[in-house]
Parts: sequence; structure tokens; C-alpha cells
Amino acid sequence: MSFPGKIINDPIYGFISIHHPLVMQVISHPWYQRLRRIYQMAFAHLVYPGAVHSRMAHSLGAYHLMQLALSELQRKGVQLTPDEEVGASIAILLHDIGHGPFSHALEGELIGNRSHEDMSLAMMHQLNNQMDGRLQMAIQIFTNQYHKPYLHQLVSGQLDVDRMDYLIRDSFYTGVSEGVIGYDRIIKMLTVKNDELMVEEKAIYSIEKFLVARRLMYWQVYLHKTVLAAEQMLVRIVRRAREIGAESHYPLSYFLSGEYAVAPEQFMLTNFAMMDDIDIMAAIKQWQNHNDPVLSRLCKALLQRKLFKLRFQNEPVSEEILAEKREQLVHRSGLSAADAEYLAFAGKVSNTTYHHHAERISIAYKDGSVKDISEVDHALIQQNLAAAVDKYYICWMTI
Amino acid sequence: MSFPGKIINDPIYGFISIHHPLVMQVISHPWYQRLRRIYQMAFAHLVYPGAVHSRMAHSLGAYHLMQLALSELQRKGVQLTPDEEVGASIAILLHDIGHGPFSHALEGELIGNRSHEDMSLAMMHQLNNQMDGRLQMAIQIFTNQYHKPYLHQLVSGQLDVDRMDYLIRDSFYTGVSEGVIGYDRIIKMLTVKNDELMVEEKAIYSIEKFLVARRLMYWQVYLHKTVLAAEQMLVRIVRRAREIGAESHYPLSYFLSGEYAVAPEQFMLTNFAMMDDIDIMAAIKQWQNHNDPVLSRLCKALLQRKLFKLRFQNEPVSEEILAEKREQLVHRSGLSAADAEYLAFAGKVSNTTYHHHAERISIAYKDGSVKDISEVDHALIQQNLAAAVDKYYICWMTI
Amino acid sequence: MSFPGKIINDPIYGFISIHHPLVMQVISHPWYQRLRRIYQMAFAHLVYPGAVHSRMAHSLGAYHLMQLALSELQRKGVQLTPDEEVGASIAILLHDIGHGPFSHALEGELIGNRSHEDMSLAMMHQLNNQMDGRLQMAIQIFTNQYHKPYLHQLVSGQLDVDRMDYLIRDSFYTGVSEGVIGYDRIIKMLTVKNDELMVEEKAIYSIEKFLVARRLMYWQVYLHKTVLAAEQMLVRIVRRAREIGAESHYPLSYFLSGEYAVAPEQFMLTNFAMMDDIDIMAAIKQWQNHNDPVLSRLCKALLQRKLFKLRFQNEPVSEEILAEKREQLVHRSGLSAADAEYLAFAGKVSNTTYHHHAERISIAYKDGSVKDISEVDHALIQQNLAAAVDKYYICWMTI
Amino acid sequence: MSFPGKIINDPIYGFISIHHPLVMQVISHPWYQRLRRIYQMAFAHLVYPGAVHSRMAHSLGAYHLMQLALSELQRKGVQLTPDEEVGASIAILLHDIGHGPFSHALEGELIGNRSHEDMSLAMMHQLNNQMDGRLQMAIQIFTNQYHKPYLHQLVSGQLDVDRMDYLIRDSFYTGVSEGVIGYDRIIKMLTVKNDELMVEEKAIYSIEKFLVARRLMYWQVYLHKTVLAAEQMLVRIVRRAREIGAESHYPLSYFLSGEYAVAPEQFMLTNFAMMDDIDIMAAIKQWQNHNDPVLSRLCKALLQRKLFKLRFQNEPVSEEILAEKREQLVHRSGLSAADAEYLAFAGKVSNTTYHHHAERISIAYKDGSVKDISEVDHALIQQNLAAAVDKYYICWMTI
Repeated sequence: MSFPGKIINDPIYGFISIHHPLVMQVISHPWYQRLRRIYQMAFAHLVYPGAVHSRMAHSLGAYHLMQLALSELQRKGVQLTPDEEVGASIAILLHDIGHGPFSHALEGELIGNRSHEDMSLAMMHQLNNQMDGRLQMAIQIFTNQYHKPYLHQLVSGQLDVDRMDYLIRDSFYTGVSEGVIGYDRIIKMLTVKNDELMVEEKAIYSIEKFLVARRLMYWQVYLHKTVLAAEQMLVRIVRRAREIGAESHYPLSYFLSGEYAVAPEQFMLTNFAMMDDIDIMAAIKQWQNHNDPVLSRLCKALLQRKLFKLRFQNEPVSEEILAEKREQLVHRSGLSAADAEYLAFAGKVSNTTYHHHAERISIAYKDGSVKDISEVDHALIQQNLAAAVDKYYICWMTI
Repeated sequence: MSFPGKIINDPIYGFISIHHPLVMQVISHPWYQRLRRIYQMAFAHLVYPGAVHSRMAHSLGAYHLMQLALSELQRKGVQLTPDEEVGASIAILLHDIGHGPFSHALEGELIGNRSHEDMSLAMMHQLNNQMDGRLQMAIQIFTNQYHKPYLHQLVSGQLDVDRMDYLIRDSFYTGVSEGVIGYDRIIKMLTVKNDELMVEEKAIYSIEKFLVARRLMYWQVYLHKTVLAAEQMLVRIVRRAREIGAESHYPLSYFLSGEYAVAPEQFMLTNFAMMDDIDIMAAIKQWQNHNDPVLSRLCKALLQRKLFKLRFQNEPVSEEILAEKREQLVHRSGLSAADAEYLAFAGKVSNTTYHHHAERISIAYKDGSVKDISEVDHALIQQNLAAAVDKYYICWMTI
Repeated sequence: MSFPGKIINDPIYGFISIHHPLVMQVISHPWYQRLRRIYQMAFAHLVYPGAVHSRMAHSLGAYHLMQLALSELQRKGVQLTPDEEVGASIAILLHDIGHGPFSHALEGELIGNRSHEDMSLAMMHQLNNQMDGRLQMAIQIFTNQYHKPYLHQLVSGQLDVDRMDYLIRDSFYTGVSEGVIGYDRIIKMLTVKNDELMVEEKAIYSIEKFLVARRLMYWQVYLHKTVLAAEQMLVRIVRRAREIGAESHYPLSYFLSGEYAVAPEQFMLTNFAMMDDIDIMAAIKQWQNHNDPVLSRLCKALLQRKLFKLRFQNEPVSEEILAEKREQLVHRSGLSAADAEYLAFAGKVSNTTYHHHAERISIAYKDGSVKDISEVDHALIQQNLAAAVDKYYICWMTI
Repeated sequence: MSFPGKIINDPIYGFISIHHPLVMQVISHPWYQRLRRIYQMAFAHLVYPGAVHSRMAHSLGAYHLMQLALSELQRKGVQLTPDEEVGASIAILLHDIGHGPFSHALEGELIGNRSHEDMSLAMMHQLNNQMDGRLQMAIQIFTNQYHKPYLHQLVSGQLDVDRMDYLIRDSFYTGVSEGVIGYDRIIKMLTVKNDELMVEEKAIYSIEKFLVARRLMYWQVYLHKTVLAAEQMLVRIVRRAREIGAESHYPLSYFLSGEYAVAPEQFMLTNFAMMDDIDIMAAIKQWQNHNDPVLSRLCKALLQRKLFKLRFQNEPVSEEILAEKREQLVHRSGLSAADAEYLAFAGKVSNTTYHHHAERISIAYKDGSVKDISEVDHALIQQNLAAAVDKYYICWMTI
């Protein structure tokens, strides 16, 4: 074969190597290149200015970890065909292809309640058609229909390469060095038993560290009050624009108007794949001068980083407190009571340190037995961490 | 004073501290916040996907190094007033405020031949008005009219904190770890003599290393053939759009139409300060579908990373070779001969390892003598490195 | 003052600065310089070859963190006199001065059951005499008799700079990157309330991470079965040499013979301060050829890294298993039954993730309240982690 | 085969993998394990306290880089047999096996003028006998008698893995971060042409950086005046002990007495392989109390880090200056004139940035041509850097 391979520089792993022409073809596709224009962490850069890395960088990183994991498993005697290697590689490259502008922050706002996983799968099918069915294996692995479940678990599970890369990468770019995990050690400890992905006994402490790092990143970064406040502003901008029918460019207008919902899937996907953070940012820049005072205020404030205030508390926010905030707003800003609801509101976030039921981390002992990490002796990770922690917040614009 | 200070996370330095309210006020200004939306390295991320950091991150980093340098000089007995500290800090924070979208890549395309330094100064004057003259000292330092030239040299000189930060930061984000410099060691070796900034004798090897790292970053990153090719595409897009009067949004339209040239300075600046990378990227996304085939092809190719090819050579590109490339293009693409000039062209880049005359690096010896680094015994950095190295290139679209 | 200061290169912190002449005097003292010749991690380098750093490097590192912590507290309004700064600095520099050869590994073997803290204090008193009482403040802080308990807590507590440095440094040198802690973030979060050292509310996740990193380092490194095996060999070598009266050089002979126990304290200390790892290693090299087969076998095996085997289990090792191992040894090696007790034995190690009672980590909330970290909402660190975890082991020489 | 492989933690590369049982056998040999007890950088730790890494750590690191380099060459189509891989691996593992205590610092003092390379070869022959001739290929590669010269060049050449590792490692452990080189990039650029090791065209700037980093490490670390002073003390201690016949332990006594010179080679080698830094350090500790005042003073001063002063100059030290220093010594110390020659003396050190003749770095161009790096256009590395730079010094004990 004449494909000479390609090396990509990465600030974290040094070099990422592309060996297979089909992988290169996927990476070169305009839909994949679009991931360059979507921030991995939406507006986290308003708090952590370094965190401006793209979904593409993350996806390439996860691909790199997949290569390392597959090599390690092969070294331990797991048999893999070249097609399986390529399939797992493409599954991870495309796992986030269905994210829209600002990814999680706008999920649920632009295309109804379709999840990004659902969109990823729909787009993978389209790409598979364009590429003569050569993504079939990738799709099977992605949807866990392939007969080697551990390949799916590497793409999506408690210990998948997606999580490993995003924790490392988000930690690296934010400068919150405590999120760093020992990915090389975890990968060296991966093993397969009964076709399931497991970790060896001696990895227990590294896994604990991984779960605690994830816990830290959630509360310190992803759910940081100012990050959350900025993302709530974004959500409210999009909702307001839709409600008042604010003008925007195609293809954003196509989604805001609701047209997408009645169009054929393939047409909708083509339009979706034309959108990225630029479309939203450009609209926000235009809407700064919109004559709706709520929309223009929100846009201006977000661009100038005059962010909402947000306060966390353990119990739901009372109606009285919320009403009081809204009255203050009306009083000070001259906005209507209805408008004030846009600019002062309550909400809830939730995070679980370890999903006990859904996705287990299994420890393979030397004596052949298998235990869930929450059941090992003297476990750090216990039942009580498996419950979701809810935090309630009130969020409001300061005038 | 009631300003409690602010700490910003940085992936390189860990924490950057803001102690003074005036510094905070500058950072909070919309013109400064706009630097979030300008890539530090324009389209270098098409080759180095990690290199998506913003001008703001660089400017905060240079500010941090300024704090370290000023502390070190004070520790060595250099007397500085609080106003001088704040002045130098703001001068470095604002040194790049005058960059437009895609900074260097589009310099000379949007506002005629005004340099970004010139624009920075103009914008600093405006800000100074808004802030009741409190930026006076910063402006004096920036323009080297203050009676302590070493403060200016820290902002702009062979060894300034601007260069130190961009080398470190660009090296960090690209993953080209060889560009890393020993900034902490260089800063520890800074000294002032006769009001000039110098380095102590024992820093010679660190300075050599700094100049060689810079040389490497230029040829390996900033002037990388693919980076250059992408930036040439951008330049050609903007030129074409202007020539054919392609529609765009305000304020980009104001600059493309040439209106800016006949407007009052202050009005022009206000408009300029509204523009960032988003405006250009949004226009490119729209122009993909323009009916001018040159413009639409260029835009689509850039977005999809189907970049120009570029070949360096030591001698100027001959007319014959260029003519041949253009003919090929016409033949294959059906474009007109005139259009082909847009898509196949020649150029020149230039870099100097050490500017011997313009900006010296002076070594302060223990015995009181001073030498230029190119004159020390057994110098690595010599006359021959002071000459600019020119490289010629031919660049063309592949169809 | 004519002391120009001194800068020491450190691989972790970059530069460590010495500003005060008394600090320099302490560092230059032969007793302090002796710490260069004591491994920080005894024989951990037999498992982690990079881990050959000295007690001196650790002690300088802890000193550096003390500077950072004191600066941070001062920035937050805690008033400190120059004498207090120097006192706390010297207290941390000398906190480990009383360690003998191979530190913890031989604690209890050379000078009876005197702890290294006890020896450190005795040596600090001697040094104080030599330095005209100028270490008085350091001694008060070290012994927690100074009226600002937080200074002692920085030297010795759950969150002291000693632990911070050893976790970072041991993690760095072993290559077990997961032990890395966010020391800069923790230090930025330190505060003083009611003269006690506390951390601010937002540091909770960093502290959790710190405790989990410590837990990991204990089980993965400090109590690693091969490290423990090597250290047990060392202990048995010293015991055997003492029992059979094996010849050694002064001053080691002075301690092995028990003479030290009947000598005046000052004389004993002077001799103690002459010993370091070199004395033990040189004796082991000589004893390789001793005619006692137990001693010579042990010495040869340790030097050639033919280490004991060690197996952990959750229950105490039964007498039967132990007897069996010893019989095997006798059978295969021709050693006597009595000798076999030296070469096959059982033991126990113990570690606690969080000392709930002894040394608290207090969280200072913004509303003025204070909680122990094990009592915050949704705490990771809970009662059950406060119990010591015991592991039992059997350890034997393979012939 | 039942060898399960072994993973070694390394602070620089993360994990080093041993795949072949013969490699494991070499590493487990007592002669190799002895390298644990020899500092890689002798007394550099008196200036850079972190630099206490062992020859073993370096040798394992160079072995790791060899694996990376061989993989890369194979990826580029260079055919290698498993025996060649193992041979090159063992050649690099053993390249420094012939170093004695304190390596370069005492080279020429203990076994006449036999170089460490010569001793390495002699020891490799012995090991080859013990291992039934299985080191034959390693010896051929080490001595450049194998028909693929590039394998030898990887072990010993301008760009060998030995240099790469020691620059990285010494830089890492000293904290002189400027010595860091982009080893991964250089290795990715290695290629073989006409059976010679070369680098690809685009590696030019990385190679320049490598040579400048090496230049920096020489002048800033290896030939640092205080490092040199400490090593001169060591040399003088050993010479003095030999001259006055100071008592020492076997096997050091065997070498100091000169007996080794008349013994059979094999016996000499066995004794040599019993010595390491411990023997020298233990002797120095004993000689502190020797009744020869020169010897005891030197030993005490070295242990307490009261080091010689050393001053560099560009011209040889004049007899007058030297005589004056010695007179001062006699005057102040009460030593004899003869003794003063031990404690005040002159010398010379020398370093070459690029060995133009001896060992070339060849650049392989895409067009098939080959150039030496000093001949490429706009080269940084030029004729003038190929000349050795000599520095003269005077060195003396301060009383």
C-alpha cells in the first residue's frame, strides 16, 4: 500500500501516528474537520483561559490512547484482526462527531432532545454510505453489537479512552493539574476476561485516583459556578432568539426556526454538519445590537464577560428568593417581569463519582476471581459514592 | 484598598496573579476581552492541532513574566515605584491590543499598511482617555519615552517578556517541545546597567539556547510550509472578497469597502475593536457558496483543510515555472487565466536569527565590562547569523 | 547585610532561594551536609531505579514550600516577624536531621527505640548551642511550644510542607506520576483562623486528591512488597551482625556494640552524626565474605538484588505455613533451623488514609464555620478511612 | 518462551520494557547491578543536589531509546533480525559497564590509563564467556565489526542513544531544563542510507538544538567550576592516598597498591567489578582522621562541602600566580611547600561543540544527496565550532 502514514504533533502525547488510509480518509472528511471549530469545553475558557482546545484535538487524543490500549491487549495475547483495529479506531474518532456547536452546553437546544450519541450514530451511517460500507465494523463496535464487547467498552465505558483523554486534556489545558491521571499505567493494567474489559488487581489505586480526579474535575471545572453561569447565558440567548424569531444566517436559522424537524433526516444532517461554534458566535455578535433588550443585553454581556452570578446550595431554591431576585432586576433594569424570568432563574446540577450499576469497573485478580472496584477490601469507592450528588443553584444577571 | 486580587489558572505558569485594580480594569475592558477571540497563531492549528490558544492567553502570560522580571530586578536593587510597576504591566498587557483578526496573517490586508504596533498605540490612547489618563505611564513605556529605557526593553527588545512568552506558549501548545526556553533562568540573570537591560555573564549559554529555540520555531512552525500555505489562502480570500465586493456583515464590510479610510480615527478604532476571528470565519463560511468560483473554492478549501501546496527554494521562483503551474490550473479547473493568478503564485519569507544592529543583547561582565553576545569568546551567535535568511516559495492550489 | 543570597537548582521547583545567612549557616553545617549521603527512600530504588534522591534534597524542597506557604499567609494578612520566618524555615530544614542511615528502614535498629523526631530535637539543641541560641525559635516551633500553633502545623501536621514535598518528590523520582499533588493550589488555599492552619472551602477536592495520592503512594511505593522485602533484608543484616558481633568500622561499631547506650548524650550524638548510608553499605560489602553463612548470604543477596520474596495477605500468617517455609529452607540450603528463622518470617504493615483524631484537616467556610474534612457534605474521606488498614505478610529467602 | 517480560518505572520515559530473557539476564548480573552504586555525574550533586542518578538508570534509559530507534528504523523499512535487536540492546546496556567508581572523575587514577571503553570491552568478553557466547553479536556491534555500521553508530556516534539519554537525564535531574532535547523528534527523523545512520532533512533544526543543548550542558554543568573543583579534590585524595600508602579495604587497596598491574586480567577484572562509589566514599570517611594532614584535610573538606575555589581564564595560568597561591597556603596553614602543591594547582579543560572530522552528522535530503550538518545552507554549526575550546583554570584550597 502506498499510504506513507502521517504524524501529528500533540502537546500531550508528543506524536500521534496515523497508519491506515481509511483512518486518514475519515480524518480528512469535512465533517471531521468541522470538529476543529467546536470548543471541547464550550465556555470554560472564560474561567480557564487556556482551555480553548477543540473537539478534534480530543478526538485525535482518544484515538491515540486506543492505539496504545489495543497494542497492550495484543501484547497480553488478545487476538485482534486488522479490521477490528481499524474499526475500534474509527469508532473512537467518530464518537463525538454528532456534537453540535458548543457541544454539551447547547445539547437539547438546537435539535430538540436528540442526544449527541444519537446524532453521532446517524452521521456515521451517512459516512458509511459515502465510504462504501467500510465503517460497518466501526458502527457495530460503537453500538455494542460486535461480539467482542471489550472493544465497545474501550470506546464507551467507565474506563474508556474517551474519558481518559478528556480528563488528561482538560486538565492540561485548564492548568488544573490535579485532574491529571496516570493513563499509561491504567492502559498497562488493562486486560480482557470473558470478552469483558477489566483491570488487573494492582491497578486498584490508579483507578481510585482516576475516579477521584474525575470527581475533582466535575466540581472544580465542568460544574464551576462561573462556567455554568456562562453556559446558562448561552442557552438563554439561543432560546430567546428562537422565541422572538431573531434573524440569523443559514444554517443556524434552519434549526432555530424548527424547519429541521420536518425535513428528511439526510438533509437535516447535512445542514447540521455545516454548523459549528462560529455560527453561534457570529449570531451573538450580530444580536448584540438587536432591539429586543433581553437578547441584546445577554449577547453583549457574554461577549464582554459580564457574566451571570451563580450561587450553589444544597436545597432547592425557594420561590421567595427567586421572586425577590426578579423584582430587583425589574426594579433596577426597567425590564418587564416576563423578561426578568430570562435573567434570574434556578436550576440543578448532578454528578456521580462512580456509577455502580450502569458501568462497572471490574478488577481481575490473579487467582481468577473478579470483583467490582466498590467491593474490594478497604475500598475508597463505596456505595455512598454511587449516589448522584445534586446541587441546586440560583443564577441571575447583575445590573 | 478593597481589591482582593484575582488568580487566573494558566497551563504553563500555574497561577497568574492580578494585584492592582487598574490592571484588572484593563483586563475587564471589552477591547481586551476581544483578544480571547483572536488566535495567537492564526492557522498554525491546521498543522499543529493543539495550537489554538488566544492572544489573550499570551498577553496574560507576558504580563506574568513581567511581574517575575520586575521582582527580580528589585531584588537586585533596582528601584521601582508602584506606578512604574503598573505602567510596565499595562504596557505589556496592551502591547498586542492593536492586532486585528488573525493577527500577523492578515496584517496589511484590512486597514491598509498600518502596523499592529501603530494600532496598539492608537487604542491605548483611547483607553487612556476613558480611564482618566491613568495609562499615561504605560504609553510612555510602550513608546520608549520614559526615562528608564529598560522598562521599554522588557516590553519590546531582543529579550523581552513578549518573546519569552510566545516562544514558551507556542512551543507548549504546538507540542514542538524544542522551542521551550529556560525563561526562569533568563529572568534570574536579568540586570540593569546604565538604565539598560542586560544579562549577566553566566547567562550566555541560556541566551544562545533562546536564540536557537527562536530560530527553530521560525523555520519549523511559524514559517512551516503548510502554515504559510493556509495563511496565503486566507490573504487571498480577503483580497478577492474586497476586489469583487463580496457581501459581508458589519463591521467587516466597513473595512473591506475602504470606508474606514475616510472616517474619523476614533470611529474607525471603535469599529476595528469590534472585529475578531469570528467575523472572518463567519464570512468565509458564507462565501463558500458565493458565485465567484475563486472565492468559493478558496473558502471551501480552507474550511475543509484542502490546502495549497507550497515549495521552498533558495532562489526566486522563475516566471516559467509559475506560468506552467497557472496553465495547469486553467487546464484542469476551467478557471480563467486571471483567476489562476489568485491560485498559483510566488513569494518570499525571511528570518534573522540575531538582529545585530537593531536590538542588541548585552552581556554584563563581573568586571564591569559590557559586550554584545555576538562578540563574546567562542560565540555561537556570530555575524553570519545576523544576516536575514530569505527563502522563496511557489504556492498553488491543487485541483 | 552582606549575604548575597544563594540559588539552588532543583529539578522539581526550578530554583530554591536562600535569603538569610542563618539559614545558609545551617545548610552549610556538616550535620546537614550529611543528609546528602542518606537516601530519602532507602531501598525503594531497587524497585524504582530513579528514586535515589537524598534526604537533603527533600529537606531543601520542604524548606522551599515553607517559603511559599509563609508568603501566601502574609499576603492574606497573617503577620509574621522576620524571626518567625527564619524559625519556621530552620525548623523544617532540620525536621529530619535526626534520621540515621537508611532512615525509616533502620529506625529502631541502631539506637534502640529512639525515634528520629527525638534525635532531631536532640541534635537541634546541640546546634543551637553551637550557634549561640539562634535556633531557639526554630526549636519552639518544632516542639509546638510557640504561641502560633499554625507554624508548627506547617512543619508537622496532616497538611505540612514535609508531606507535600515528599509526596511530590518521591512521585517525581519514582516515576509514579499519580502521586503528584497540586501543591501550588493547596498552598494558595491555606489560611489561618484562631491561630490554627486551615484550608479554604474551595480546596476540598484538592485535599481529597492529596489524601488519595498519599494512600496510593503508601500501597504502591512505600509498602510495595519488593521494597519491603529489601528493607527487611537490611534489618536482618544489621541484627545478625550485632548478634554475632561482626566486625565493622567506627562509628558503626560503636552503635552495633551497644556502647552508645552508656555514653554521654553529646558524645553519642557526635558519633551518630558521623554515620550515613555509606557506613552501612561499606559494612555490607565487607560482610559479603563473612564466615557466618546467614550474614554473608544476606549481604551478597542484597547487593546483587536477589531479594526475599514477600506475600501479603489479609490475615496473620499461620504458624504452619511459616514452619513449612523454614523447613524448606533448611532442607535446600543446609542452614540450621535457628538460622532459617532469620531468612523466613512473618510481619505486618499498617497505613491509615486519614488520621481522624490525631491530626485534623480543617476546612474554613466563607460563612465563618469550620468543619473537619471528613464531615463535609458528600465527603469522600469518611470514618471508615480513618481506621488503620493492616496487611500481614510472609517473607522468605529463595534458595 | 515463558519469560513474561518486565516493566521498569522511569521518571523520564514512564515505563521501560524488557522483552527478551537474555537482556533480563544481563541486567540481573551482579556486574550490571553494581552500576546502581556509581553516580552518573560523580560530584555534580554538590552543585545540583538533584543529580544523584546512577549509571544504571542512564544505561536503562539508553536501552529504552535504542528500542525506540530500532522500531522507527524498522517502520521505515530497515530489516533487522531478532538477534541484531538483542545485540544492539545489550551493546548499549553494557557500553558503560567498564566505568569504575565515580566514572570519568577517577578515570586514569585507579587502573592506570585504561579507558572505560577498554574496560567495558574486557568485561563484555568475560560476560560473553559466562553466557555461552551469546553476547557475540553485542560485542561485534560495540566494536564496530558488524557489517551494519548504523547499529554501532546508534551505540556510539554523534547522535547515539547514549548521548541522547545522558543529556535528557542529566538535564532532568540537575533541573537545568535547558539541556532537554527533543529526543522523540530526533528518533522519528533517523534513517539509514548506505548502511550509515543519518537524519532526514527536516531534522536540521532539532539537531542544531541538540548540539547547542550539549554545548550548554558542558559549560554549565559538566565543566561547572565547582563541579570541577570537587572532582579535583577527589582525584587528589586518591593520588595522595596512593603515594603515602594510606590503608584501605580490599579491593580498593589492591588497586591503590598497584598489585592489579601484575595480576592476570581475569582476576583484575573480578576485583574491579567489586568496586563502586561506596568503596571510595568509605575510604574518604576513614581517611578524614588520617595523620597525613593533606589527606585528612582533603577528605574532611570534601565531605563537608568546603570545596576548592576554581577560577577559569582564557590563557594558561602563569607560574607566578600559582607560586603566590601556594605561598599563601603555606603561610596560612602551616603545610609544607611540597604539600601545598597538592592543594593549589593549575589545569585545563576542553570541549568541542561539533566534532567535524571524527564523527559526522549526515543529513539525508529528499533528492538523495547527503550533506554534513556543518555544510547545509545558513548553518548554525560551522567550522569554527568544530575547534576545541580550551579553558585554563587555577584551583586552590581556601584555609
